[in-house]
Amino acid sequence: MERSFISYTEALDVIADHQKSFAVITVPIVDVGGHFLAEDLIADRDFPPYNRVAMDGIAINHSSFARGVRSFPIEKTVGAGAPQVALEDVNNCIEIMTGGILPKNVDTVIRYEDLTIENGTAAINLEEVTRRKNIHFKGMDIAQGTIIKKAGGRLSSAEINVAASIGKHELKVYKMPKAAIISTGDELVDVHETPLAHQIRRSNVYGIKNTLQEWGINSDLKHIPDDKNEMEVIIDNLLKDYDFLVITGGVSKGKYDYLPDVLKNLGVVKQFHKIKQKPGKPFWFGVSNEGKPVFALPGNPVSSFVCTYIYIRHWLRSSLKMDTNFTYVTLAEDILFKPELTFFIESKIKNLDNGTIVATAVFGNGSGDFINLVNTDGFLILPPEKEVFKKGEVYPFVYYRNEI
Amino acid sequence: MERSFISYTEALDVIADHQKSFAVITVPIVDVGGHFLAEDLIADRDFPPYNRVAMDGIAINHSSFARGVRSFPIEKTVGAGAPQVALEDVNNCIEIMTGGILPKNVDTVIRYEDLTIENGTAAINLEEVTRRKNIHFKGMDIAQGTIIKKAGGRLSSAEINVAASIGKHELKVYKMPKAAIISTGDELVDVHETPLAHQIRRSNVYGIKNTLQEWGINSDLKHIPDDKNEMEVIIDNLLKDYDFLVITGGVSKGKYDYLPDVLKNLGVVKQFHKIKQKPGKPFWFGVSNEGKPVFALPGNPVSSFVCTYIYIRHWLRSSLKMDTNFTYVTLAEDILFKPELTFFIESKIKNLDNGTIVATAVFGNGSGDFINLVNTDGFLILPPEKEVFKKGEVYPFVYYRNEI
Repeated sequence: MERSFISYTEALDVIADHQKSFAVITVPIVDVGGHFLAEDLIADRDFPPYNRVAMDGIAINHSSFARGVRSFPIEKTVGAGAPQVALEDVNNCIEIMTGGILPKNVDTVIRYEDLTIENGTAAINLEEVTRRKNIHFKGMDIAQGTIIKKAGGRLSSAEINVAASIGKHELKVYKMPKAAIISTGDELVDVHETPLAHQIRRSNVYGIKNTLQEWGINSDLKHIPDDKNEMEVIIDNLLKDYDFLVITGGVSKGKYDYLPDVLKNLGVVKQFHKIKQKPGKPFWFGVSNEGKPVFALPGNPVSSFVCTYIYIRHWLRSSLKMDTNFTYVTLAEDILFKPELTFFIESKIKNLDNGTIVATAVFGNGSGDFINLVNTDGFLILPPEKEVFKKGEVYPFVYYRNEI
Repeated sequence: MERSFISYTEALDVIADHQKSFAVITVPIVDVGGHFLAEDLIADRDFPPYNRVAMDGIAINHSSFARGVRSFPIEKTVGAGAPQVALEDVNNCIEIMTGGILPKNVDTVIRYEDLTIENGTAAINLEEVTRRKNIHFKGMDIAQGTIIKKAGGRLSSAEINVAASIGKHELKVYKMPKAAIISTGDELVDVHETPLAHQIRRSNVYGIKNTLQEWGINSDLKHIPDDKNEMEVIIDNLLKDYDFLVITGGVSKGKYDYLPDVLKNLGVVKQFHKIKQKPGKPFWFGVSNEGKPVFALPGNPVSSFVCTYIYIRHWLRSSLKMDTNFTYVTLAEDILFKPELTFFIESKIKNLDNGTIVATAVFGNGSGDFINLVNTDGFLILPPEKEVFKKGEVYPFVYYRNEI
């Protein structure tokens, strides 16, 4: 259904309706970071897989200690990685290392710090010793066959560590869609060119390309002139070669904003045009007859930035079955915004050592002022129902930094 | 100076003392994301570079409006990207598009929404019009020659957008050091092998490799057996080929923990061994005679995880002249921890819609229980001076997720 001038939340719903199911591919474990997990990770054995010695020291049979034995001749010394041995005489001990398999006929490990070892005998310098001490028992963490991590979500080092331990030298992950990012506008020249007085360089597309890359999406950059026929031929081809298109510019009220017409001619069905928001009002969203989304973003730098982080991200998260996740931050100062529009305002955030994150809005010179972006960390999402947003109130925030 | 069993903060200081200056390389703008900026970004022209039309509509000379003129014949229509034109008769107007250069002899733009255009004449449907309206004036955002972004910090889409606009088709960034990540321990088999009853698979190194990758650091994985001579030969070679080494295991009190001796023989000067912390106490840090850091992490999975996120990250941030940055979070429940050690406890965090981030500690079965990592988001840093950490108190938190 075609809609016009809809709300921010309606726009999110429409976009979620056009989520895709991504194919599943297999990727070697060393390259899997940042991918989205498409299979359950299941314990192939108990964890730990054997009664694992948790400290360097000696292993004893606790019954001897209970009977008053304090000095234990060392029967043998065993490192981690050696097959299981057995204690032959329960009045002896086995010297043993962290990570090793617990020998037979022992049930307690005493660490070096509590021992005096002389002439092949270990004396225990403790009054009391708990049986089963310093042993990480088989299956204590998780039993064989248990799902450790369900499919879904982004792979971090934690999952990769666990995946390696269960023998996943390659993992099933989602194949991310490939995007064409298309700039329009005859005032734009390439980044390595020196613009004339009335020209500027293409820049939005480089920022968007990087954002998609951070999300694991590869893309190619294209430019099309403000010529209706040429536009139609180029976009037609791109719709064949890519999984989705991101276009900047050409969707406003301007005389040369041919894009909606061109897309219509190519069978891309408009889902909505214009959102009750600032910036980014002229955003156009459609879907091709093959179901490929076309995000036609306003050409203003801040508008295209905001629409990428809100709407393309929402489509991606929906497709990956991930819930929306915003950071909730506290306003450091009052913000006044009268129009009945969702207001995305660039802000600097600060995580105070009292545990709150406060956001200070940084007002630039409108959606054409992207210099402002480098001085901020993300943007607040302020709802249309209010005009005054008071210091201390809490609102969602979208972060665009990538700190280490 | 050689130290033993030092505090967490002392360890951070020692590591910062061994920070490196990274070389500067040049990288094409399309590949620059995630790199660390090594040059100032300077405005090559005013921003905007010309008086930029901010709305689609008509441009007029305000004096005519002030004199009562409301209907303006359209003298010509100009798109963005066209060279500057001039209004010939101040009682006419020029139809003009967003992003275009403001014509000569005009000073005000009226948007289509406030116009009725019929038979080549635009009638203005407003009682009042402010002079200079809807124009984004030359140099309003920033003047030519101004530093937009000082060197330092990680490049996000915001900086990349701006870099493109000032013609930086390539950028100077820091060349990240290359790491060898070395596993030790004869109980370890490779990820594609099926371990025997007393063996486990190498896994820590895969997690560490991914973490370094997220920070922009490439690494190779190596394994060395618990054999002193072989260790010495292999590490000697790796010290020549890599900028720093990360070693897991072999630094505890165990009989086969040869690593400190081997490193000493190779001229790697110990800076400290053991930190008053849990987990990760046996951490060993040294520097080769060529000044290359060697991070010898305990072999327990959670220990090596924590030491990577705390100490290797600190070395990296120090080398890049970045301040420590933790997230400050609020405890959801009391935590009791008696030993006089800095306590790193895996925790799940939740950003409540009242603007606070609360952390709930998830106690696993000690530093060998890394299954627990997949159920948490990072770890709290609890100082050694206290035993009871009360619900509602605020502590630093290190996040290891990489959400989109």
